[in-house]
Amino acid sequence: MSGNRFGKLFSVTTFGESHGAAIGGVIDGVPANFVLDTEAVQLELDKRKPGQSAIVTQRKESDVVTFLSGIFEGKTTGSPIGFMIQNEDQKSKDYSHIQHAYRPSHADYTYDKKYGHRDYRGGGRSSARETAARVVAGAVAKQILGKIGIQIITYVDHVGEIKLTDSVKIDIDCIENNPVRCPNIELAEKMEALIKTIRKQGDTIGGAVTCRITGVPVGLGEPVFDKLHADLGKAMLSINAVKGFEYGSGFDGIAMRGSEHNDEFLTSGKTKSNFSGGIQGGITNGEEIYFRVAFKPVATIMQDQNSIDDKGEEVIVKGRGRHDPCVVPRAVPIVSAMAALVILDHYLIDQSKRIF
Amino acid sequence: MSGNRFGKLFSVTTFGESHGAAIGGVIDGVPANFVLDTEAVQLELDKRKPGQSAIVTQRKESDVVTFLSGIFEGKTTGSPIGFMIQNEDQKSKDYSHIQHAYRPSHADYTYDKKYGHRDYRGGGRSSARETAARVVAGAVAKQILGKIGIQIITYVDHVGEIKLTDSVKIDIDCIENNPVRCPNIELAEKMEALIKTIRKQGDTIGGAVTCRITGVPVGLGEPVFDKLHADLGKAMLSINAVKGFEYGSGFDGIAMRGSEHNDEFLTSGKTKSNFSGGIQGGITNGEEIYFRVAFKPVATIMQDQNSIDDKGEEVIVKGRGRHDPCVVPRAVPIVSAMAALVILDHYLIDQSKRIF
Amino acid sequence: MSGNRFGKLFSVTTFGESHGAAIGGVIDGVPANFVLDTEAVQLELDKRKPGQSAIVTQRKESDVVTFLSGIFEGKTTGSPIGFMIQNEDQKSKDYSHIQHAYRPSHADYTYDKKYGHRDYRGGGRSSARETAARVVAGAVAKQILGKIGIQIITYVDHVGEIKLTDSVKIDIDCIENNPVRCPNIELAEKMEALIKTIRKQGDTIGGAVTCRITGVPVGLGEPVFDKLHADLGKAMLSINAVKGFEYGSGFDGIAMRGSEHNDEFLTSGKTKSNFSGGIQGGITNGEEIYFRVAFKPVATIMQDQNSIDDKGEEVIVKGRGRHDPCVVPRAVPIVSAMAALVILDHYLIDQSKRIF
Amino acid sequence: MSGNRFGKLFSVTTFGESHGAAIGGVIDGVPANFVLDTEAVQLELDKRKPGQSAIVTQRKESDVVTFLSGIFEGKTTGSPIGFMIQNEDQKSKDYSHIQHAYRPSHADYTYDKKYGHRDYRGGGRSSARETAARVVAGAVAKQILGKIGIQIITYVDHVGEIKLTDSVKIDIDCIENNPVRCPNIELAEKMEALIKTIRKQGDTIGGAVTCRITGVPVGLGEPVFDKLHADLGKAMLSINAVKGFEYGSGFDGIAMRGSEHNDEFLTSGKTKSNFSGGIQGGITNGEEIYFRVAFKPVATIMQDQNSIDDKGEEVIVKGRGRHDPCVVPRAVPIVSAMAALVILDHYLIDQSKRIF
Repeated sequence: MSGNRFGKLFSVTTFGESHGAAIGGVIDGVPANFVLDTEAVQLELDKRKPGQSAIVTQRKESDVVTFLSGIFEGKTTGSPIGFMIQNEDQKSKDYSHIQHAYRPSHADYTYDKKYGHRDYRGGGRSSARETAARVVAGAVAKQILGKIGIQIITYVDHVGEIKLTDSVKIDIDCIENNPVRCPNIELAEKMEALIKTIRKQGDTIGGAVTCRITGVPVGLGEPVFDKLHADLGKAMLSINAVKGFEYGSGFDGIAMRGSEHNDEFLTSGKTKSNFSGGIQGGITNGEEIYFRVAFKPVATIMQDQNSIDDKGEEVIVKGRGRHDPCVVPRAVPIVSAMAALVILDHYLIDQSKRIF
Repeated sequence: MSGNRFGKLFSVTTFGESHGAAIGGVIDGVPANFVLDTEAVQLELDKRKPGQSAIVTQRKESDVVTFLSGIFEGKTTGSPIGFMIQNEDQKSKDYSHIQHAYRPSHADYTYDKKYGHRDYRGGGRSSARETAARVVAGAVAKQILGKIGIQIITYVDHVGEIKLTDSVKIDIDCIENNPVRCPNIELAEKMEALIKTIRKQGDTIGGAVTCRITGVPVGLGEPVFDKLHADLGKAMLSINAVKGFEYGSGFDGIAMRGSEHNDEFLTSGKTKSNFSGGIQGGITNGEEIYFRVAFKPVATIMQDQNSIDDKGEEVIVKGRGRHDPCVVPRAVPIVSAMAALVILDHYLIDQSKRIF
Repeated sequence: MSGNRFGKLFSVTTFGESHGAAIGGVIDGVPANFVLDTEAVQLELDKRKPGQSAIVTQRKESDVVTFLSGIFEGKTTGSPIGFMIQNEDQKSKDYSHIQHAYRPSHADYTYDKKYGHRDYRGGGRSSARETAARVVAGAVAKQILGKIGIQIITYVDHVGEIKLTDSVKIDIDCIENNPVRCPNIELAEKMEALIKTIRKQGDTIGGAVTCRITGVPVGLGEPVFDKLHADLGKAMLSINAVKGFEYGSGFDGIAMRGSEHNDEFLTSGKTKSNFSGGIQGGITNGEEIYFRVAFKPVATIMQDQNSIDDKGEEVIVKGRGRHDPCVVPRAVPIVSAMAALVILDHYLIDQSKRIF
Repeated sequence: MSGNRFGKLFSVTTFGESHGAAIGGVIDGVPANFVLDTEAVQLELDKRKPGQSAIVTQRKESDVVTFLSGIFEGKTTGSPIGFMIQNEDQKSKDYSHIQHAYRPSHADYTYDKKYGHRDYRGGGRSSARETAARVVAGAVAKQILGKIGIQIITYVDHVGEIKLTDSVKIDIDCIENNPVRCPNIELAEKMEALIKTIRKQGDTIGGAVTCRITGVPVGLGEPVFDKLHADLGKAMLSINAVKGFEYGSGFDGIAMRGSEHNDEFLTSGKTKSNFSGGIQGGITNGEEIYFRVAFKPVATIMQDQNSIDDKGEEVIVKGRGRHDPCVVPRAVPIVSAMAALVILDHYLIDQSKRIF
């Protein structure tokens, strides 16, 4: 109800600010008796970590997750998993200049007006640092999904003007072998070059992430309000900097004819095409789920900007600190984590009805 | 939890199938002592009704809402408002041909697999008829929002290849004066012509709806998971045939630079541009909220299609009945209703915290 | 969130006032493909009906339930079951005398202060008439539980000073054969005589109801806040006129020693005694669940009472109308219904975790 | 949904086991801009701490709470408050003897059957150690309530056969001056002597706690399912070892007449008597709320008991370790905390509706 919990049967409740003592959360509804690979969770978290490559922020945060409960002798107990990531790199001095100033297109102004009191250090709760807790919970969900046979593949398909079109060859194996996390090495290099150019200009740029989910059983999703794609959409839109979500044919579906868009059934129960994106009437049909998430350019730029302070006086907000010129490479594990949370939650909800 | 409720403090729980006895719902969390104009609710419902114009389905449903509780001497009592719409036009014969067949890109297959038992008459629960209950609840919410000073404007901006671009003049007053509900009469006529052509071909076409919300106070939206646009996105994606959602700069934000995208603050607290779409960090900043919703072409076409039946045998699904060639004209009141539900719910949640 | 919904995975949302058009509700989360005996639901509802015997209110309400959705060809579809009971006996004149007066120990005063606007006819939403909707939902739950092998037995064990003690022989079969619904015919006659005496005095009297649940599998209940008995307690306390709840040893446990109270395990996994009431650590252990619910004397008495009106002026509230001298005989099906809702909901929640 | 969260608008989600790394939780929905006295929270936690007096367990746990987020410059920010209490006294050896044995009337058996995997060290999640997290959250709630003018007074009124009757003089100031937390010093001494005797016998004994809440505004509580006393009842019944709950006249109301039980209104709006316990129709009427909570004797006794192990073999469970002979003295701060959580949550919910 108060916005810091996600999920119904399998849920995560998160806490923590950019420059507080720690961030973390509580994962509830974990099926018992599951051998949890905590190192794999850490590896997933490492993918989101600052300082991985030349095109992401150079902040130093080791981001080590500590599990505090819910695991005994290597297995989940069914009790909630509490976890914590200590904040290390708390250079609060970096942020004194924005104590009273509102950075354009950040949440400084809205938090101040909503709460009347704001942790101005590094964005506080509005910082994308919060998403580290999501990655931890998502990594736990992903392992459980893996055992069920569900796989999630996530990659960058768009940076600025450079887009992965249908004609480009996709090589899933190369996603983690390039700093952009694009599944085509040539395109990845172009994207990397673009991001470096943008950074040199003290500017930032937008991008998009594709997520594909395979091995999903037929039947996940709850009509009418909790359609699977509605919950996926909410999950993605809750990630910092996201401006849009589409699944299946998405916005391209606007210009299509029904005769072209309809996915013809084969006798196997599979469909010839998959414009539905694996979901019909809000319920999975067993085909691959796929969706795209649009990210705006990061609001923090290394240029001076006109703005106001909390007294309504004009100020110049100076570009400082260490920030991402493009958010999508580090957004990949976050999109993946949120997808895992939604799918596992719906899997459990669907299970609950299958009693006869 | 089971998918038929929407909203937290202000919620609607709906029931009903296309060809059952009735559809309806329960609106809970209605502030007391509000003079409810039930005729205005009916007028809103009439906007969604079949048979309004030549470009929508010619089914005959008078769709009269009956309020069963929660209103006394013309005012809300704070108790739940139960309401009902009798189903009239129950031509079940129209649907006998799909008792065993799965219509392509409908929910026949997924409902059958999920529930093992399906009301095949007119799509049953998966029919868009269900959205009439949303319109009733949304119309109640809209009236309450009106008293607070919040206005919602919704219109069609895209049909097939015809799109309302930034250069086209928008006339809000003409929205309800043309059957497409497009705010530019020339474009509206083109769209109408296109829809008619498509219908003659026995085909269907997609479209998009824009929604704008003004008069919203600063501070609505709950970080981190219940960001206002995340809840708006879920609301829209839960509507039948929706494939995408974007707010503010949306998918266009991908190709923008931060220096261009950032909304500079003026000393009034307003912003020069509004690429943020009225929401920053998930919280309203007082600017106009605007978002777009993409609808696929309706799955029911008046053409024969190859498909399978529930035994996996090949069948021909014949196009029959009375259906919409394009869903967006009738989707306008539904998008509007869902927006109202989200905004009022968040308004109440925000109020609850303002105790000091 | 707004108080008119009960349950998580299996839930009911109710609406309706004593003298409005209708009462009813929406049952959500119903497992699909279940053959629902709607006549059995009506029979359960008849047990709650006014005018069944000489010791209950003589109001005439036929209380016929109409199902509006969610059932097709006699079986549940997994879609929500909407239902309605028309209000017939709307003698609003009976209540004009309390339009401005606050009846002692009713909800007139609190509703007026909370909502600022009150449906004064027969208590409006605060009337126990609302519980009819619970009985419908509970009857549906009970049928599903019956298929799983879970049985619920409910009876009156206490009226005024007359109590069913451990030494009294219990005959389950006689519960429905006497108007008090006491499982011992001699005691039932004494209770009936007492209630008749009280009624002649224009007074009312309290009582208690026992509920026993058998055939419950081990493992229902969610630590730590949603312990099974905590949810049962909330369910019972939400019924009109309830003042107390105890399960297992209950309040008698206060004076017991641990050595006496502990339930020794047998090699079968059963326990020698059952002071735990079938629940340990909030989770069922397979033994019989039993609990007691205390009801206060009905607030409406046939005597004149001093009170105030909505201007704070002294008034005499005169005893009028047709009311129950003792609520427990008609409370039996309500307690039973609420128990069924809790048990089925927890059964579904428990199922959802059992995925490996 | 999964049992480890309590509350709607103001909620706490807890984690942690008796002998894991830490226990803790996340408090969500905290109104912003409130000066939080963290030392006062620690003092409240100290009241629950083991080893405070001769009549409670002599385990050594310093129980120091660390706040991890949500507080900045001494004030709440409106973001979730994460907190943690390190576990110190992890003598796991003490528990090796129950690795396979089921202690009578503990949760060993039910956890094992539900989860198939159990943290057997000190009861794991089923240990009352979990309630420390509730006390932290409750202490935060209490401070906020204090600012609104709501006070909560909690004390022991019953131990074994010794009961605080209406004729005994109550001195609120002496509650914290005696180890039993009874508000009458003579009775407190008798209770203390009884508990010491019981402990010498290696046995345990039950008790009861009274809670009174004053300064509550009229109007808290949501009909029909979320009546204020229903939520208080659930809160109390979720505490370890609780077997019963009653408010107002409670179980004594069974034998009362309506003419005696009805609370006559005075022209001030106050009532002459208060058998309603400050709640009518589920909504506060401004009178003092009072309720009683019954606790069973602690299941861990210092005597050998017959039981079974996880293979169904007979075993002797030997009494060991350091345990409470009577739980009620340390239950006082827990009852108080849970009451605070319920009242603040309902206060916020009620606020949300008061928009006109």
